[in-house]
Amino acid sequence: MTDFASDLTEIDTPAAIVDVQRMRRNIERMQQRMDAFGVHFRPHVKTSKCTPVVRAQLAAGGRGITVSTLKEAAKFHAEGIDDILYAVGIVPSKLPQVLALRRRGCDLKILTDSVASASAIADFGRAQSEAFEVWLEVDTDGHRSGIQPESPTLLEVARTLSAGGMRLGGVMAHAGSSYDLDTPSALMAMAEQERAGCVLAAERLRADGFPCPVVSVGSTPTALSTECLDRVTEVRAGVYVFFDLVMHNVGVCSMDDIALSVLTTVIGHQLDKGWAIVDAGWMAMSRDRGTQKQARDFGYGQVCSVDGTVQPGYALGEANQEHGIVYREGERDGDIAARFPLGSRLRILPNHACATGAQFLEYHALDDGGLVRWDRAHGW
Amino acid sequence: MTDFASDLTEIDTPAAIVDVQRMRRNIERMQQRMDAFGVHFRPHVKTSKCTPVVRAQLAAGGRGITVSTLKEAAKFHAEGIDDILYAVGIVPSKLPQVLALRRRGCDLKILTDSVASASAIADFGRAQSEAFEVWLEVDTDGHRSGIQPESPTLLEVARTLSAGGMRLGGVMAHAGSSYDLDTPSALMAMAEQERAGCVLAAERLRADGFPCPVVSVGSTPTALSTECLDRVTEVRAGVYVFFDLVMHNVGVCSMDDIALSVLTTVIGHQLDKGWAIVDAGWMAMSRDRGTQKQARDFGYGQVCSVDGTVQPGYALGEANQEHGIVYREGERDGDIAARFPLGSRLRILPNHACATGAQFLEYHALDDGGLVRWDRAHGW
Repeated sequence: MTDFASDLTEIDTPAAIVDVQRMRRNIERMQQRMDAFGVHFRPHVKTSKCTPVVRAQLAAGGRGITVSTLKEAAKFHAEGIDDILYAVGIVPSKLPQVLALRRRGCDLKILTDSVASASAIADFGRAQSEAFEVWLEVDTDGHRSGIQPESPTLLEVARTLSAGGMRLGGVMAHAGSSYDLDTPSALMAMAEQERAGCVLAAERLRADGFPCPVVSVGSTPTALSTECLDRVTEVRAGVYVFFDLVMHNVGVCSMDDIALSVLTTVIGHQLDKGWAIVDAGWMAMSRDRGTQKQARDFGYGQVCSVDGTVQPGYALGEANQEHGIVYREGERDGDIAARFPLGSRLRILPNHACATGAQFLEYHALDDGGLVRWDRAHGW
Repeated sequence: MTDFASDLTEIDTPAAIVDVQRMRRNIERMQQRMDAFGVHFRPHVKTSKCTPVVRAQLAAGGRGITVSTLKEAAKFHAEGIDDILYAVGIVPSKLPQVLALRRRGCDLKILTDSVASASAIADFGRAQSEAFEVWLEVDTDGHRSGIQPESPTLLEVARTLSAGGMRLGGVMAHAGSSYDLDTPSALMAMAEQERAGCVLAAERLRADGFPCPVVSVGSTPTALSTECLDRVTEVRAGVYVFFDLVMHNVGVCSMDDIALSVLTTVIGHQLDKGWAIVDAGWMAMSRDRGTQKQARDFGYGQVCSVDGTVQPGYALGEANQEHGIVYREGERDGDIAARFPLGSRLRILPNHACATGAQFLEYHALDDGGLVRWDRAHGW
């Protein structure tokens, strides 16, 4: 059900709104920070999966992109981007897709963290006469995949790749547990842990005779908190482009930096309870409750007026599939129907921009010139 | 990135698999139960948003459908289904879309729970010479929208519609709080509360001179628990078609009834921790943690072998965007890499079938004849 309205009071709801000015500011902030450190910046496009957003990141100075799926790699390569890191450990069954992309001219780098996976890459690469560029995933905070920097496995994997004729392009780490922190000192310490672990892995590889040109680290919280990037060659981050309430609680953005919101319409009230019912449920917001375990829990989102002004204390407290419940935290609002009348519109800031964006087939980009539709990628 | 493989060991992962035999059994079970009560059954298609699924529901005896978005209404009307209930309170800005569908021959019924909304419907309907069929939403459990059965508002809304020349088609209730229950007695009591409240609303309307032909109730838990549907004319339910872990915990299905699973590939291990890393993260499973507050918490899902055999004690415990962490609950599995080797495949039963299905552009339907792709609708 599409329409061609160009105004926040006219388009169908729910809709995902991108505040382009905020987005540009977020992109500039990150790029300038990375430029000051003298490192390359490789944006992770899993947050937006959207061409105009990625174009803006590259225009600001981004070098190459990071993707979370091979579908993203295929999309952005078809749009002219060659330098792509697929930042999820590769499995043998996905190698034919990687090969096809490389044969089409995509400089696609893949990731491994085990001898078994490295052997499979080498076997397939040799059989296809393709020297895949492989990066080693390094685990610096124990939150997910990767080889520990001091592990003997690191060198075994490098030898397996090298013996098989593959190219060891670098090492990469992602301190995902930085999302659980909320003080500058803890964030700086985590950034240094990520950097030091990744550099250690690179130096062990180099000492063993492997060139390992790239040392790639990053997450939005660590990239915005680090004070030292010595011997790092590039940084990656994704959610900084839009930011969200989780990042607000981590402490790396203000509420006014959040560039993604969900436009919604008030469809009813429960006056006894002080509720306004809106047409943004979890299908629009996603089920992400990332602020649940943080110091400030925003339910399913922070309520703003249609012009984006934060309505302090008003949250999207509960969500069904296509219904959301807006209420005042702490104390019932007896005037909710006058404050947010039937048919009026609100904008909801999301817990997690990556998850909320993924619920929509398109964004509505709001700039000085009005609203423009921006498609985004989906699925695998 | 699509392929044309026809086997669970060959298709790209992650993928949403529908076990067609289980789905048919679930459809039969519900339809036979409703037939025994002598009531119509109107499936809620928000769970699948998928034509072959809805066709199977109607072929089994379903009468009309329930939708959660006007996009679903347009899709299914274009495919030949006329009798459609849009079960989210209407707002004025959506009335032009409703009108357009009705003018194309869709017998689309809309919902209201306030005088303000009823007035807007009547005003727009009169201006367009359209007698909208409107149902009144009745609140029988305080969980969301609706007018309380004994409220004076009920009759005011009916009078507003009638005075404006609109047709009062019926009353409807949805006892969504049944999802929070897990004993047969509590479920039966909630079903009776839903029925009695909705019937009371209908009888008050009739006593005031409104015909109110339809009395529509339903949720999967109450529909499968009710012992009495006296004076009810139709029942609605959605998630029963696939079931999920939340419904398993509520107690209305067994693990072997769950017809939706996510096929995933093992991409690595963290042996120290007893983890297998898989390529189904929250983007595939959704962020739904519906079992978190239930007696049995399944994390992001229950692990099964590729043939669908439940692996007791193994859960998808954590999820990042494209990474999931499989582990044994309670005790580290030191043999995890032998049990679930690199490149091997698993199927994950989801917490919430509506949320997980919505993450995919298509299902892979698994029947005796192999795999078939089934498209599904998205967005608004």
